[in-house]
Amino acid sequence: MRKEEKKADTFILKGNICYSKTEKEVTTIPHAYLLCRDGICQGVFESLPDDYKEYPLTDYGDALILPGLVDLHLHAPQYAFTGLGMDMELLEWLDTRTFPEEGRYGDMEYAKKAYRIFTEDLKKSATTRACVFATRHVPATILLMDMLEETGLQAMVGKVNMDRNAPDYLCEDSPEKSAEDTLKWLREVKGKYRNIKPILTPRFIPSCSDRLMEMLCEIRREYDLPVQSHLSENKGEITWVKELCPWSAFYGDAYERFGMFGGDYPAVMAHCVHPTEEEIALMKKNRVFAAHCPHSNTDLSSGAAPIRRYLEEGIHVGLGSDIAGGHVLSLFQVMVGAVQASKLRWRLLDETQKPLTVEEVFYMGTKGGGAFFGQVGSFEKGYEFDAVIVDDARLQTPRKLTLKERLERVVYLSDDRDIAGKYAAGRRII
Amino acid sequence: MRKEEKKADTFILKGNICYSKTEKEVTTIPHAYLLCRDGICQGVFESLPDDYKEYPLTDYGDALILPGLVDLHLHAPQYAFTGLGMDMELLEWLDTRTFPEEGRYGDMEYAKKAYRIFTEDLKKSATTRACVFATRHVPATILLMDMLEETGLQAMVGKVNMDRNAPDYLCEDSPEKSAEDTLKWLREVKGKYRNIKPILTPRFIPSCSDRLMEMLCEIRREYDLPVQSHLSENKGEITWVKELCPWSAFYGDAYERFGMFGGDYPAVMAHCVHPTEEEIALMKKNRVFAAHCPHSNTDLSSGAAPIRRYLEEGIHVGLGSDIAGGHVLSLFQVMVGAVQASKLRWRLLDETQKPLTVEEVFYMGTKGGGAFFGQVGSFEKGYEFDAVIVDDARLQTPRKLTLKERLERVVYLSDDRDIAGKYAAGRRII
Repeated sequence: MRKEEKKADTFILKGNICYSKTEKEVTTIPHAYLLCRDGICQGVFESLPDDYKEYPLTDYGDALILPGLVDLHLHAPQYAFTGLGMDMELLEWLDTRTFPEEGRYGDMEYAKKAYRIFTEDLKKSATTRACVFATRHVPATILLMDMLEETGLQAMVGKVNMDRNAPDYLCEDSPEKSAEDTLKWLREVKGKYRNIKPILTPRFIPSCSDRLMEMLCEIRREYDLPVQSHLSENKGEITWVKELCPWSAFYGDAYERFGMFGGDYPAVMAHCVHPTEEEIALMKKNRVFAAHCPHSNTDLSSGAAPIRRYLEEGIHVGLGSDIAGGHVLSLFQVMVGAVQASKLRWRLLDETQKPLTVEEVFYMGTKGGGAFFGQVGSFEKGYEFDAVIVDDARLQTPRKLTLKERLERVVYLSDDRDIAGKYAAGRRII
Repeated sequence: MRKEEKKADTFILKGNICYSKTEKEVTTIPHAYLLCRDGICQGVFESLPDDYKEYPLTDYGDALILPGLVDLHLHAPQYAFTGLGMDMELLEWLDTRTFPEEGRYGDMEYAKKAYRIFTEDLKKSATTRACVFATRHVPATILLMDMLEETGLQAMVGKVNMDRNAPDYLCEDSPEKSAEDTLKWLREVKGKYRNIKPILTPRFIPSCSDRLMEMLCEIRREYDLPVQSHLSENKGEITWVKELCPWSAFYGDAYERFGMFGGDYPAVMAHCVHPTEEEIALMKKNRVFAAHCPHSNTDLSSGAAPIRRYLEEGIHVGLGSDIAGGHVLSLFQVMVGAVQASKLRWRLLDETQKPLTVEEVFYMGTKGGGAFFGQVGSFEKGYEFDAVIVDDARLQTPRKLTLKERLERVVYLSDDRDIAGKYAAGRRII
């Protein structure tokens, strides 16, 4: 590689650096240097190492530099109705709000219009990585992947599988057709993108027949794919899964029997609000990621997930906006929602499980969820270089604040106006 | 009055008009005319009445025109630490965060700096009216009133009374000194403002000796003042009140014995999270307003107030940001917080009390809280003319929405960027 090319992939950012090594504390280093080489973080330095002096440096002045935020669960097609119909529970909401909207993505003109708004807003946010549900439609899913690729964001995107319990306009005709479309999609996107990867996406057990799950399991193995789905979100849903899969010991077991619940490959399950003890044990054993979606769990009155318990068990926890079950795209606001839900859970339900701290939710929104993508979500050496620059000047106060306090206010009060720059996988995207 | 002058006080706004008559529904009238004469709303019309054709008309195009929002409870000096220290419960938070900050308002330079930030941000928000706690300091309280007067916002502001259980730097020296300062303050502000009025503000029972409460009761009568304070926010606080006032039957009774709990004058009590049956009955009898502060009650882990019950009882309920126990100044976000808290309360605590609807919280944030100021918070004929114009163009969607749906998205998703204009008491302020 010629020297010029190498230089372009090596650069330095200067600013007030905050990141997590563990969930217990945030490391804050004022006016420090953050080094990137070939898309990989080389660590944080209080003074610039000599062998980096010839590389380009961007000085963000008094702004904060944080790891890019990771959204472990969201539905791109549902962005169109964010903030609407927040007066139903899950199953009614799917029938009334979600399925009719997702049905529209057979129309590529509509999909283009809707996904443009979604990708623009996601790009403007503090999020650098996301696990995204599309719809069951192959062309619209590929369109979404194309548009996300262009933003520079890193994402895993799934064509949704659903062959039962959905209206005709949205339900796939048969397990065979669903599997066939999935293979078609996987072949078309293979090797196509730099930033976007496919992820297998059975909607949830009530939408997927046993036969479909068997076929998806084979596809998963053949293509070595990660899996995303939903787990134990709502009590009515859990009862329904038991009816649909009477042989299952618990909800997660219905995935496990089809080899779709992690183990030797990454699996992320959204919600995990009402687990049984056996389900918690299996999540732990199989290293299943819990995508905690507090706004969604509150907006759909699903409940408050036992996140403290998951942390105690060492289960991986990341955060999800769950657009549009949740009404906010901002992962900072999802962090606040996670603290708030844990406080009401503590006060109203179980005073043995202490509320989450701002350190813990910041960890979940960065390194916690980032682990689903590999070494992502921190500024430790060897991590992929995702960074977001937040200028908190708008959040005025007469007080002198520590960097840790400024970070706390960024979490609680900032919005997309305050994003001054963003890098994903070593490339600047805003 | 000359014709020109009369004209200046009479004007028309045109836009998509949404307002509440009852808590059950929102009235929405697209592209309609809203008439103001001498600061008073003359109603909403689908076509412009003939006798208004000569008056100035502002056409806000496709924007929404809503009644100005009413914040029934907030602490201006605490704005400086909004979004900080959200990891404590009430009593610890007062000692650690609040009292040290309020102690700074003896320094007029600091007060000027802090109150400038607060008043600028409140002016930019969708709020047109507020009940505001200052600190115990007379000069800084008058400074705050001066600065609020300049914004054009309508507000009731209280010099805080507190003569016990506070650190020396903040505690008033004696009940007599507290009463004397209160009289000094009331004399200085008497007749001084067009927009701002004083309100008697005993901090809460733990901060006010019996002797002070007796003296404040006399001052209240002499000056015919409304009262604002705190009620049954936190279980530790309630136990403490019982210890401090062993003769009281319940927390509200401790105010009632000193003639400070409404009845023949308006009283607003913040929080009301853990009432007894007797307290509810007395609130109802005395027409006490409950200022529901859901973000604060969640952020400080106080609990979730039984707002459905209050509505069933016909108790007046308005919304409060409770800056900085609550971390958001936006009353729209307080509405969302109220719906969310009611959903978790329903799911986790009491499934007999249904969650609040967006119609109900919109009512509380306008007409519900507005009633504390008189005929305020609606566009019915005879109401004081407070209006906020919201341009929702930023909240893009590929869907065609009804006006009601657009309002729902404004509540869930808008922020101060979207405020295109604001009027309070018939005068344009932004």
